[in-house]
Amino acid sequence: MQIAVVLFDRFTALDAVGPYETLGRLPGAETVFVAERTGPVRTDTGHLALTADAAFAEVPSPDIVVVPGGPGQTAQMENQALLDWLRTADATSTWTTSVCTGSLLLAAAGLLDGRRATSHWLALDWLKRFGAEPTGERVVVDGKYVTAAGVSSGIDMGLTLLGRIAGDEHAQAVQLMIEYDPQPPYDAGSPDKAPAHLVEKARAEIRSFVK
Amino acid sequence: MQIAVVLFDRFTALDAVGPYETLGRLPGAETVFVAERTGPVRTDTGHLALTADAAFAEVPSPDIVVVPGGPGQTAQMENQALLDWLRTADATSTWTTSVCTGSLLLAAAGLLDGRRATSHWLALDWLKRFGAEPTGERVVVDGKYVTAAGVSSGIDMGLTLLGRIAGDEHAQAVQLMIEYDPQPPYDAGSPDKAPAHLVEKARAEIRSFVK
Repeated sequence: MQIAVVLFDRFTALDAVGPYETLGRLPGAETVFVAERTGPVRTDTGHLALTADAAFAEVPSPDIVVVPGGPGQTAQMENQALLDWLRTADATSTWTTSVCTGSLLLAAAGLLDGRRATSHWLALDWLKRFGAEPTGERVVVDGKYVTAAGVSSGIDMGLTLLGRIAGDEHAQAVQLMIEYDPQPPYDAGSPDKAPAHLVEKARAEIRSFVK
Repeated sequence: MQIAVVLFDRFTALDAVGPYETLGRLPGAETVFVAERTGPVRTDTGHLALTADAAFAEVPSPDIVVVPGGPGQTAQMENQALLDWLRTADATSTWTTSVCTGSLLLAAAGLLDGRRATSHWLALDWLKRFGAEPTGERVVVDGKYVTAAGVSSGIDMGLTLLGRIAGDEHAQAVQLMIEYDPQPPYDAGSPDKAPAHLVEKARAEIRSFVK
């Protein structure tokens, strides 16, 4: 069982690390971080790099594909090397998954046409324009396609998929080991719950650079 | 404002990435990943490396120190280069923090003597042996020392500290941006909540390799 986590310039670290730290604890699975070229790949803040240990050509048929999002995703929407690899990997994958705006890359590759899917709450309209049917859920499973909402939701997605593949008990053991008993100091993690002016500010910021 | 996140061989990725993705979004702050030597540092699974962009000597006086944990922490308990750097950095830091068994490294450096602190639930006894006063809380603030429970708790710690430094509103905006509205598919994230046999199994596994 091989799990391929895609990296690209200016991805969001937690998008990739959430599924890695949960789903990656599937018994007997090998996780490989893959990118167009091997070597360090910088995150969106520029202050961190994760290593891509393999190039796309070295990982042609992973069992599970995980696509993170992040500000760099916009440029990747036109990266044919990445989109071609997604289509090739998806042709034989058991599960094709994304976190945050990673679903836009799956959609751009033509993999989410007419499928129920999700993305970062600020990107749901975009997802629709690319042919998917966005839902407001945090983790959406449609056939073998599993998409998660923004950034931190990859943890919930990873545990959900781990349960489906390895059973509830294994997923619970992983949840216990990573002590995932969330106690956020605020209840502002979704546009329905956050103060309205913060939601509007975030929407305005997105509008200012996405046309 | 400089935030130093410590890396060492076989650390747990999410321990480091949780605070980075939250606290690291402090306005005007620079986050730097620091280790004994620069270059890629492998995580506990061996399947991922994060880049240390600076060596200890290059980051003598960060404002905030973040120490992750992970299986590799045991070997680091006797790494004088790391313990010396922790003591030096702590001498001028505004906040000294840890996630998971990172608190054992702070304790080994003599920084948690008599202080209320926490760690991964499987390591609380150890923490006591090193002079701290373990509590069952997920995030513990004692003076400038902020310790968090296992792995995923670094997200809660990061938001908590972000709120103290930059204000509730900024912390809420970050929570909204990383869509931290946790919906774990199980309620097994702490030893109080997980099925008892999974808790006992985890304790037995730890006993088998920690004397």
